[in-house]
Amino acid sequence: MSVNCSPCASCKLLRRRCSQNCLFAPYFPSNDLHNFAMVHRVFGCSNLTKMLKDVPVEQRGDAVKSLVYEANARVRNPVYGCVGIISNLEIQVSELQKQLAIAHAEIRTMKMQQEFMFINGGISP
Amino acid sequence: MSVNCSPCASCKLLRRRCSQNCLFAPYFPSNDLHNFAMVHRVFGCSNLTKMLKDVPVEQRGDAVKSLVYEANARVRNPVYGCVGIISNLEIQVSELQKQLAIAHAEIRTMKMQQEFMFINGGISP
Repeated sequence: MSVNCSPCASCKLLRRRCSQNCLFAPYFPSNDLHNFAMVHRVFGCSNLTKMLKDVPVEQRGDAVKSLVYEANARVRNPVYGCVGIISNLEIQVSELQKQLAIAHAEIRTMKMQQEFMFINGGISP
Repeated sequence: MSVNCSPCASCKLLRRRCSQNCLFAPYFPSNDLHNFAMVHRVFGCSNLTKMLKDVPVEQRGDAVKSLVYEANARVRNPVYGCVGIISNLEIQVSELQKQLAIAHAEIRTMKMQQEFMFINGGISP
């Protein structure tokens, strides 16, 4: 149960009594209905319970944050969810790698030109 | 139901009769128990049904692929799931952008050196 003795967001949304040992209370405070509604909509209460119990207590906060992120991504993009974000980032990585390879090739060429100019003691424009 | 009249993977796993109109049959063929087991474990049958029905028929194949990917990521990494992959890619993008900025700065400097050398008609090593 949350510090101010009001039920946590999950118990409020599911209309049940919030006990001292409520699994969700530390991560979904009373005023945080939206986040719980999102994870509940995508994963369901029973799966959420199982997933949180499978994670060590000290990592449950991080697990909840990632589940909330994932649920929001799925609601925003029902076809691709988080995978849409991953695809876009992979495209961005690939594009940046290409640009970096081009830039490094240009640097190599310019270094060779400079070395050539040094060896020949000058240039004739 | 799948083409060979055997129940689809979801109906096989949930031990139910696979009808002609089974929502899952086109995406989870009879021999694909693993993928359905993964999405079932993470999202649950009822949520999966809702999520698939919310997506136009022609996009359901893509939605299933992204849900399978997401479920596998969550099973491999129960704390961060797909969000762990996104974080790593964001770090990679940021690192590549820095390297690209350094390379472009080097190119600018070398171009200025070359211009200087052209203007001065040569160099004195």
